[in-house]
Amino acid sequence: MPDSLPPDSVGLVSPETLHFDQPIELACGQTLNSYDLVVETYGELNDDASNAVLICHALSGHHHAAGYHSMDERKPGWWDSCIGPGKPIDTDRFFVVSVNNLGGCHGSTGPASINPDTGKPYGPDFPVITVTDWVESQARLADRLGIEQWAAVVGGSLGGMQAMQWSLSYPDRLRHSVVIASTPKLSAQNIAFNEVARQAITSDREFHEGRYYDFDTVPRRGLMLARMVGHITYLSDASMGEKFGRELRDEAYKFGFGAEFQVESYLRYQGERFSESFDANTYLLMTRALDYFDPAWDTHGDLPKALAPARCEFLVLSFSTDWRFSPARSEELVNAMISARKKVSYAEIDAPWGHDAFLIPTPRYTDIFTAYMDRVAREVGA
Amino acid sequence: MPDSLPPDSVGLVSPETLHFDQPIELACGQTLNSYDLVVETYGELNDDASNAVLICHALSGHHHAAGYHSMDERKPGWWDSCIGPGKPIDTDRFFVVSVNNLGGCHGSTGPASINPDTGKPYGPDFPVITVTDWVESQARLADRLGIEQWAAVVGGSLGGMQAMQWSLSYPDRLRHSVVIASTPKLSAQNIAFNEVARQAITSDREFHEGRYYDFDTVPRRGLMLARMVGHITYLSDASMGEKFGRELRDEAYKFGFGAEFQVESYLRYQGERFSESFDANTYLLMTRALDYFDPAWDTHGDLPKALAPARCEFLVLSFSTDWRFSPARSEELVNAMISARKKVSYAEIDAPWGHDAFLIPTPRYTDIFTAYMDRVAREVGA
Repeated sequence: MPDSLPPDSVGLVSPETLHFDQPIELACGQTLNSYDLVVETYGELNDDASNAVLICHALSGHHHAAGYHSMDERKPGWWDSCIGPGKPIDTDRFFVVSVNNLGGCHGSTGPASINPDTGKPYGPDFPVITVTDWVESQARLADRLGIEQWAAVVGGSLGGMQAMQWSLSYPDRLRHSVVIASTPKLSAQNIAFNEVARQAITSDREFHEGRYYDFDTVPRRGLMLARMVGHITYLSDASMGEKFGRELRDEAYKFGFGAEFQVESYLRYQGERFSESFDANTYLLMTRALDYFDPAWDTHGDLPKALAPARCEFLVLSFSTDWRFSPARSEELVNAMISARKKVSYAEIDAPWGHDAFLIPTPRYTDIFTAYMDRVAREVGA
Repeated sequence: MPDSLPPDSVGLVSPETLHFDQPIELACGQTLNSYDLVVETYGELNDDASNAVLICHALSGHHHAAGYHSMDERKPGWWDSCIGPGKPIDTDRFFVVSVNNLGGCHGSTGPASINPDTGKPYGPDFPVITVTDWVESQARLADRLGIEQWAAVVGGSLGGMQAMQWSLSYPDRLRHSVVIASTPKLSAQNIAFNEVARQAITSDREFHEGRYYDFDTVPRRGLMLARMVGHITYLSDASMGEKFGRELRDEAYKFGFGAEFQVESYLRYQGERFSESFDANTYLLMTRALDYFDPAWDTHGDLPKALAPARCEFLVLSFSTDWRFSPARSEELVNAMISARKKVSYAEIDAPWGHDAFLIPTPRYTDIFTAYMDRVAREVGA
């Protein structure tokens, strides 16, 4: 709740809902006849519409990436550290577009939206969405905004997968793809953690096979568990150790199963808060989009071959203590890009915060990201 | 289901239930007036009772460590790879004692046992048990068996903590402590994973605050989830990748939330099987025993000082890809032992299987373990 807005903030922002009524065919074979996308934009589109940057969000993200919705908002958008005047994605130079993805639960059409065919929430009838589908919907958003080519498409984690997919689906519609803390595909361990999260949700008795809206309830405990296990994978062992260690909430062991260690109460709190604000069906969809992403599927695992269509330049960034998508996974991508003779810049950033490091500004991360985006801006005269 | 028993097996074995009616005071402040311990023994105790080896089990373990209960048993005991004639713990030389710990669910007194005060299962009234309590109960078991001093106390993971604690609680009652794939204390991340498991169990509607026995049900889904998340931490990313990769059960994506990837169906199967055979209250107790173990608690984190009372020799083994209790955690222990001027041998074994590697024989592991135990045997003339 800032008294005044920080000078490097994009300030007060308002989301906008855009309605699309051209049917979209999805990878799963189903079609959505119409849908809404909620977007926020920061900065000004220049005359030749060449300075637009698309922000792609990760599993639990949304369109509110920067600035404040009101003077009462406690925290700014989720990537405020990187988006704003003078920040790596400099809103004095770029027109930044941030969208809540299809299937989301922050205003864009998703499982909690009303299915026009039934007059009830979609629930489990909402189609499974893939990264490719998101890129398709984002391309229509670009059309709507009059953006023929993005100066850059940028994302971390699942957002990085979208930035990758853009380079393959629409090679001529972006100049740069910025892929941060991501991977060209999930490992068995990654899928396994997602599966635990899904089982936690679907085995909650309040899940009602995804139709919990009709029962006026939510699978709160399942979603809480899903978030708790996810949260552990976003942090490094070292950063959890640094933050909590084995610190107790009281002075001695209580010999029970209440939250005795600080890390227990932190995780419970995070899980509970998340379960109050996020839709469980969206969580299922997002984890499945992660699982399915595999651009080399069609090329039988040959990633350089899969990357052949790309024409943009790439920036790939990884973080030293990220064990969810470790630097080795980014290097796999970078090596494939080099094999495929793409232009790629790569840096592994030394940071202690695990996967979450992509959300936390550190000098080297900020410097590299800023320098790269400065070049992107200069190329388009911004 | 072997047609004939392998020549290096201890063969057909039978557990035995020993009743103890001397009250045991527990670390939590409560007292158990009487209790049963189920044990198996392999090999023969020598005349001066100097060749006894105690096996301490881990979270989901029990007394059945080696051999077969019948010719129909599909698999031998859980550590059959290391216990038997000619194996590292050579039953031609040692008298091996394997006990189901207090609080367990394989015959020893635990939450599912009848509380003599109420005539009903203990459930949540069963006291929280610590590693120190187990060592105390195991010391009484040693008394009962006429064993004044163990040639060695041996354990992996949570079992290794018991082997450590023996050296501190009863310095004169063991000659060697063998601590495999263990840690002197859990990290915040370790506790966090345990907490997810506990929340999964206690938030299952069938848990009934631990009194599910009275409702003729079990928190099957919660225990399944707990096991799934645990199982991921027992395997390495690489070994899951090797075993499952991104392999699908069918040829293409089905765009749903069923088990599509092999790793999903494997985890579900493991979780379901476990949830049918293990008691949820015991799982809670075991994870809490892990959380609480911290021999340096009384010395304000000074581990060398905490280790001062020990008089035995130590063998410490770790495994290169174990990320649950990584080699660095064993090295922390070894460095403290060296600071405390204890005799310690240490090896990090190169093995791809993560934490589970302590259950899987590999040449270097077997060689080192065998050589050490050979020395232990020779010292006592076995």
